[in-house]
Amino acid sequence: MTDIRAQITQLDQEDPLKAFRNEFVLDLKTIYLDGNSLGVLPKKTKQVLEDTINNQWGARLIRSWNEDWLSCKERIASKVAKLINAEPNEVIIADSVSVNLYKLAFASLTYQTNKSEVLTDNLNFPSDLYIFQELCKQSFPDKTLNVVHQDKFEDANANILNAITEDTSLVSLSHVTFQNAFRYDVKNINEKAREMNALNLWDLSHSVGAVPIDVKALKIDMAVGCTYKYLNGGPGAPAFLYVSKELQNKLQNPIAGWFSHAAPFDFSPTFEGAESIHNFAVGTPPVLSMKAIEPGIDIFLNAGVHNIQNKSELLFELFLQLFQLFLKEREYTISTPLSPEERGSHIALTHEEAYRINLSLINPRINRKTIITDHRPPDIIRIALTPLYLSFSELCEAVIRLVEIVDTKEFENHSPLKSGVI
Amino acid sequence: MTDIRAQITQLDQEDPLKAFRNEFVLDLKTIYLDGNSLGVLPKKTKQVLEDTINNQWGARLIRSWNEDWLSCKERIASKVAKLINAEPNEVIIADSVSVNLYKLAFASLTYQTNKSEVLTDNLNFPSDLYIFQELCKQSFPDKTLNVVHQDKFEDANANILNAITEDTSLVSLSHVTFQNAFRYDVKNINEKAREMNALNLWDLSHSVGAVPIDVKALKIDMAVGCTYKYLNGGPGAPAFLYVSKELQNKLQNPIAGWFSHAAPFDFSPTFEGAESIHNFAVGTPPVLSMKAIEPGIDIFLNAGVHNIQNKSELLFELFLQLFQLFLKEREYTISTPLSPEERGSHIALTHEEAYRINLSLINPRINRKTIITDHRPPDIIRIALTPLYLSFSELCEAVIRLVEIVDTKEFENHSPLKSGVI
Repeated sequence: MTDIRAQITQLDQEDPLKAFRNEFVLDLKTIYLDGNSLGVLPKKTKQVLEDTINNQWGARLIRSWNEDWLSCKERIASKVAKLINAEPNEVIIADSVSVNLYKLAFASLTYQTNKSEVLTDNLNFPSDLYIFQELCKQSFPDKTLNVVHQDKFEDANANILNAITEDTSLVSLSHVTFQNAFRYDVKNINEKAREMNALNLWDLSHSVGAVPIDVKALKIDMAVGCTYKYLNGGPGAPAFLYVSKELQNKLQNPIAGWFSHAAPFDFSPTFEGAESIHNFAVGTPPVLSMKAIEPGIDIFLNAGVHNIQNKSELLFELFLQLFQLFLKEREYTISTPLSPEERGSHIALTHEEAYRINLSLINPRINRKTIITDHRPPDIIRIALTPLYLSFSELCEAVIRLVEIVDTKEFENHSPLKSGVI
Repeated sequence: MTDIRAQITQLDQEDPLKAFRNEFVLDLKTIYLDGNSLGVLPKKTKQVLEDTINNQWGARLIRSWNEDWLSCKERIASKVAKLINAEPNEVIIADSVSVNLYKLAFASLTYQTNKSEVLTDNLNFPSDLYIFQELCKQSFPDKTLNVVHQDKFEDANANILNAITEDTSLVSLSHVTFQNAFRYDVKNINEKAREMNALNLWDLSHSVGAVPIDVKALKIDMAVGCTYKYLNGGPGAPAFLYVSKELQNKLQNPIAGWFSHAAPFDFSPTFEGAESIHNFAVGTPPVLSMKAIEPGIDIFLNAGVHNIQNKSELLFELFLQLFQLFLKEREYTISTPLSPEERGSHIALTHEEAYRINLSLINPRINRKTIITDHRPPDIIRIALTPLYLSFSELCEAVIRLVEIVDTKEFENHSPLKSGVI
């Protein structure tokens, strides 16, 4: 253990991102391993919001639309574009991930009239499946939703590749899966899809800010994603939506709002869709939640996605080492792929008592830090590796608690009956 | 003028709502007459947001969902319900007005399969028309959108009543029109619609918080509305959506998200729609913008909608009196109906130089207060009467400026070329 401790101290000392911890509001009595669900608060965001509330809404009022809010929307979108190597005119900030997914899937199926199938798999986020299920049922009854059943990660890419046929209209998957952080071979899948004239639509919610994304190199047609996980944009912050320039004039947003119009401020009674990415915008964005997004993205761009990816891998390697030494024998297993290019930045640790261990981490006995992870049914504890604010020693402390909770049967203090909602 | 000044002083002194001004952040060098576009900041909202940012997001993090954010969503919805005399299980806070309108219109047209027409008119908000235009075009090509052309307010209700036929599937109008604040005879229209088995869907954006609304008495089937105008919920705050209990099990949300599911936290792979108003929710709400809504609604409920309506009428009467004395001869006209039950709470003042007069009000010469109104093409200056924070003397000051700007030709300091976007 002494060797490992020395190694961990060194990892923290040599961490090129260590200064970035200071950009965030962190509680030293808490180790936060849930950044894949809700990222932490950047200090700068507090200032931005104070200004937005007091000086913009509170004083400049309606004038703030012209003075900042309209341009801010574009500015944030262009920063997200930078993050995923898109052009600024290929990204908007709008609505929620689900609403954006609906708009793009609807537009794709309208465009691909002569094809019969929407392809996804059972690793996709449940609410992505809901969107497709009801879309096929309510709007495209001639289309079938093919939910590929994935058993083993080893076969996941091949299963998708095999399932893409000439009938495939749209392939839509989570880039990194929410449960086990499996990451697809996006490029190969997209190439096969293009070969079959199918469109691809990726949900980047669990990958953006966690792994490098290059929509051009990966040949991504369309994407949606979340700003409140690894990007630290604040609870329920508006989502983003990407459509490649080549595709924009072929697709039409089904929900034609104020901001989808070519000239929103003409108050024309007739809809004329913007011939740009703005076609996929709808109504007025929730300004406070939107303004909160920018500082987190700035931090991200400053840190550099490759530094983040490197540290994420080092954190994972450390965890794996500790797992082999201490967790394996306590009947924990890792259900996240071990190969870096096959995973995102969280770890799915499974254990028969996952639910109660998770409760023990969050509500510890006295003199222990609060460790915030989350539980996903049936037996997963998710541990997010967030390189911007997680230290190697914190990760080690979390492992020590995982050991202790099992060894002392501390989890038995909690009822196995599930309560709470998230 | 002396008489009027005395009268105005008395109106302010006897105003039962005068204490409510103190609930808002107001700048004494500005007269804000644009509360129909973006309401002002309640002082309490500053505290709520500070707590949300620092203590909830900043410290409790993901735990805040269980501790407050999920219940807050329900609490705000039930307060909106109270405001419009709906049941708490008939209202949700979700998405934007346009997205909500889309969901409800889509659901209505799916339900009313054997009818061919969607009925609205040219007084409706342009983006409401966009939603219907594209919905009919993209999803319901067998339905026709009938946009009744309204020439005179005197005929507006009759024109709608005449246009409702057995073919009418859905009647959807703005309760109070955005340009001229015309208010429909909702009850009669809804009764005729029911007689013809048509559903009704009202956009309450320009009426909620401005005039009393009783969805039961008015027989409203469905409604959407905005929280950031008269309710002072903050820029782009999430909208609300109402569906009467009787109708809920007949309609299905086309955009099936996380929160539309009967059991969102089961992570079931199969969509099973909530058999409640929650069916019409979609994704995670933008928490900061959502939290900002509550204090404004609380103030409203405390003030009482009838006090608000009374003061709105008194403000209008005062304006009318001043108009007759000073504005009429300067070629201003009022294009808002004069009868209280036929209007909302803003005044459309028209003038050939409306655009430049509006600019002069907002950017005054030295030693004059900034007066914030807005301009709507072609020749309208909109003046919002917001009884919670507007005094009678402020309204009088605004009229004095309207006189001065014309008499001194101050408006000529501004270019007639339109710039800016809102």
